[in-house]
Amino acid sequence: MAQPPQRRLAILGSTGSIGCSTLEVVRSFPKRLAVNYLTANKNIDGLMEQVREFHPRAVVVLDEHSASIARTKLEGLTEVLAGEEGLIEIVARGDVDIVLNALVGFAGLKPTLAAIEAGKDIALANKETLVVAGELLTGKVKKHNVQLFPVDSEHSAILQCLRGEEVTNIDRLILTASGGPFLHLEKEKFHAITVQGALNHPTWKMGRKITIDSATLMNKGLEVIEAFWLFGVPADSIEVVIHPQSIIHSMVEFPDGSTKAQMGIPDMKLPIQYALMYPERPVSNFQRLDFSSLQEMTFLQPDMEKFPCLDLAYSALRAGGSAPTVLNAANEVAVRMFLDEEIPFSSIPRLIEEALSQHVVEQNLTLDDIVRIDTETRASVGGASTDVRTSQRRAASFHR
Amino acid sequence: MAQPPQRRLAILGSTGSIGCSTLEVVRSFPKRLAVNYLTANKNIDGLMEQVREFHPRAVVVLDEHSASIARTKLEGLTEVLAGEEGLIEIVARGDVDIVLNALVGFAGLKPTLAAIEAGKDIALANKETLVVAGELLTGKVKKHNVQLFPVDSEHSAILQCLRGEEVTNIDRLILTASGGPFLHLEKEKFHAITVQGALNHPTWKMGRKITIDSATLMNKGLEVIEAFWLFGVPADSIEVVIHPQSIIHSMVEFPDGSTKAQMGIPDMKLPIQYALMYPERPVSNFQRLDFSSLQEMTFLQPDMEKFPCLDLAYSALRAGGSAPTVLNAANEVAVRMFLDEEIPFSSIPRLIEEALSQHVVEQNLTLDDIVRIDTETRASVGGASTDVRTSQRRAASFHR
Repeated sequence: MAQPPQRRLAILGSTGSIGCSTLEVVRSFPKRLAVNYLTANKNIDGLMEQVREFHPRAVVVLDEHSASIARTKLEGLTEVLAGEEGLIEIVARGDVDIVLNALVGFAGLKPTLAAIEAGKDIALANKETLVVAGELLTGKVKKHNVQLFPVDSEHSAILQCLRGEEVTNIDRLILTASGGPFLHLEKEKFHAITVQGALNHPTWKMGRKITIDSATLMNKGLEVIEAFWLFGVPADSIEVVIHPQSIIHSMVEFPDGSTKAQMGIPDMKLPIQYALMYPERPVSNFQRLDFSSLQEMTFLQPDMEKFPCLDLAYSALRAGGSAPTVLNAANEVAVRMFLDEEIPFSSIPRLIEEALSQHVVEQNLTLDDIVRIDTETRASVGGASTDVRTSQRRAASFHR
Repeated sequence: MAQPPQRRLAILGSTGSIGCSTLEVVRSFPKRLAVNYLTANKNIDGLMEQVREFHPRAVVVLDEHSASIARTKLEGLTEVLAGEEGLIEIVARGDVDIVLNALVGFAGLKPTLAAIEAGKDIALANKETLVVAGELLTGKVKKHNVQLFPVDSEHSAILQCLRGEEVTNIDRLILTASGGPFLHLEKEKFHAITVQGALNHPTWKMGRKITIDSATLMNKGLEVIEAFWLFGVPADSIEVVIHPQSIIHSMVEFPDGSTKAQMGIPDMKLPIQYALMYPERPVSNFQRLDFSSLQEMTFLQPDMEKFPCLDLAYSALRAGGSAPTVLNAANEVAVRMFLDEEIPFSSIPRLIEEALSQHVVEQNLTLDDIVRIDTETRASVGGASTDVRTSQRRAASFHR
């Protein structure tokens, strides 16, 4: 049998947590996966190491300043481009088959759209892209006939459960959530939550932004919206269940009452490999489940009073149109303010709720509309005093 | 869209537990499923009710004596045939598309083979058929290009997990077992187990023979052998895990480390409907899982010392050839002797072990070989004194 063709990758955000896991997967399949492009924020040294190992044709870094440093360090090794323009250029190049987007937040949107328009398959770890521009993005996926693989454990689980099934035939999606570090903390103690405490996730090791989103359950809220766009299932048929062991990654219930679940030891390399090697399931060395030592899996309902972010996400999805864009922008600003110790943990949902209540929902959004609403929301949530700092940070935030 | 064609059923063993559940499924899809043939043992009154409701073209009963009673009672309503010959005749008739075989034990073998040779699809609840004649039967399934749907929750679960996957690509099958009523009983108290206690299954309501098999874990052993033949997975890659809640019905682990599970509230109507309506999953009114009220699922290793029948089944599968035929025959006799209070519960595995140790394994079995080995084993296990009674009972045992 002929060897299947090599898939040529562009990895956006290669020095972050997902980027590094992706390169670990690539190491296992050197004949099947080629790394043609890598991008990083300011971690030039980390990027240099990756360039020496994987020999990409070009890299993209945050801005011209970082690019000139990188050009000196990487001279003769690879081409160096800069900024969002550089990202948009490389994803469209002819020697890219699939773009793994591990950028963080809204900044992932334009490169994703550019890649789809250039006919590239997408492995999407940047869930905010689907949250802020789900209609636009899924429309383009259809129009350009590309494949969109979610790279998070929950949606990869659903995709795996749906193999061989009619995707129009879903009765209910059940997204599991670990519950985060504050699952059992009394609500009265939430005011004392520290950045360090919130960054200490019980089952998953991830980047800072998604770890805070997991602590507030906003991550699960964003995933509910993501599931809506990926699988076309209405909000009322998407259920969130707290499952602290993170063994079941999500489930699908079919009209006949049968439920399918996908499971595994928590490891992001599994959904990454699934997306990059689909439809194959080549042998991996990832740790296997051992049911006799596992002993138990537990389940409980999410507490919407303790974790109002999840409720806010459902509300934004039900409101539709621009509401999820506002939800996401407000959340990105609020999370950054919490990480910078400008606001307490409990203010994150408060700021998002205010932003949603002040917003008049718009429908049928263009990319320009989305950018405008995102910018306006950031300005309003950041407040007059932090306005300038926030927009500076935003410009500097397209990488993990 | 045109209505899909009606599937015409022959239900072997229609007055038993699986037969009645099958008719409940048929009631939900009167335009899609037609009952053309029903068969029963001696429960003529139960069969009469079914005839009045479903209007089969013929029925088969145990023997000529029962047939003459039935002919009187069912005069003008339907044709009445008798015995194994009757079964073999009706499964091959032109107005049958699928044969649901819910016969008990070895008696299901010949009608199954006749149906496959006549090109009929099979919904197989009679797992003993695959245990005693797996090679012969799966060879004929391939040769006659028919579909074989397992009708038990475990193998239906595996089949559902394998939809859209490469069946050659299984790393491990994980069969779940409730553990039966004696999961937590100390081994020292096994001598005091009563028939009534053994018939009291914690999660599944089933026929008497399979309920005893569940109490000894032989049922799970037979399922390991069944899985070997259905999915081509070697014994060492088939694992049994005790899962007392019976929510996860079984699992498949793939080479990439991903595990898929199928779940549901224990209800045999689900795998029956799946087999009869495949590939569709039409809406059912079966009870749905509620994860927040479910709270926990637990797992533990089976205790092979307390339940040697499971170990014996693995040994028979590894020995191959005629060993599973001997295992099954010895088990059928031993279970009947226990139900008749001729032997204690703990003698069931002892009798089977003796039969296996006395047997010289034969390979490449014909149907005649299988019948001969089955008969010899029954005679030897039943012992000289019970020999005659046992063979009489066997002749009378082809229905639940």
